[in-house]
Amino acid sequence: MKKTASLAAFALVLGVAGSAAAQSFAKPEDAIKYRKAAMTVMATHFGALGAMANGRAPYDAAAAARHADVIAVVHNLPFAGFIPGTDKGDTKAKAEIWSEAAKWKEGQDRLHDNMVKLAAAAKTGSLDQLKAAWGPNAGSCKACHDNFRRD
Amino acid sequence: MKKTASLAAFALVLGVAGSAAAQSFAKPEDAIKYRKAAMTVMATHFGALGAMANGRAPYDAAAAARHADVIAVVHNLPFAGFIPGTDKGDTKAKAEIWSEAAKWKEGQDRLHDNMVKLAAAAKTGSLDQLKAAWGPNAGSCKACHDNFRRD
Repeated sequence: MKKTASLAAFALVLGVAGSAAAQSFAKPEDAIKYRKAAMTVMATHFGALGAMANGRAPYDAAAAARHADVIAVVHNLPFAGFIPGTDKGDTKAKAEIWSEAAKWKEGQDRLHDNMVKLAAAAKTGSLDQLKAAWGPNAGSCKACHDNFRRD
Repeated sequence: MKKTASLAAFALVLGVAGSAAAQSFAKPEDAIKYRKAAMTVMATHFGALGAMANGRAPYDAAAAARHADVIAVVHNLPFAGFIPGTDKGDTKAKAEIWSEAAKWKEGQDRLHDNMVKLAAAAKTGSLDQLKAAWGPNAGSCKACHDNFRRD
């Protein structure tokens, strides 16, 4: 299998061609490792914003803006790692990622929209705006994880 | 141990206070997982630029610019994960990271300088500039890994 060609085709399906996510991998396990790593980075900074939004951490406008900068770049990255042949191995990815491509794409688009809004809100310096943008994001994480990730 | 306080102190030592790296972790293993994840993301995009610089992949100016955007944000992140108490566990980190703080900081500064230059070069649209900026970076990876990472 030509990885570059198949990734390009897949990226087109996902509509991520041209995004920062476009990437090629020598082996399927590299793609799995990469997408999990990008998820971990995203989740860490997302979680830090959530702690502020939910009052578990003091609001720090400067820190929130820095988390926003990371999230704005990182949130699209994991999707490039879901190349064909990566449904097996060290992963909780469900086969539905590939068999329900339209629904998967929908989830990705929702994540993108929400993350762009969250990042913008986190840079306003307003805790109220951060709180308002936070809710939809937590929901979009859960919806995709329920549908596309094994427990 | 108060994690937030100790991280703040550590960030100050590293000179990363105020960078996107500032981050707090509930458990040492979270910090280890985070720094490894950020390294994986950085290495993937860095490697993609290296493949172009070294002629193993065709030069793609648009892709190079996207990799640069990721690297510009991600390269500083791993350092926030080297909080006190994370020299043990699932890590190859050497104790020298904490016992030779000045040398560690020097390596981090060099990485930062080189990555900023690499990202700028990768956005010029010139393969020659990418090639010129590439060399010093590969060297700065190796120097720190030799000194601060177990095989």
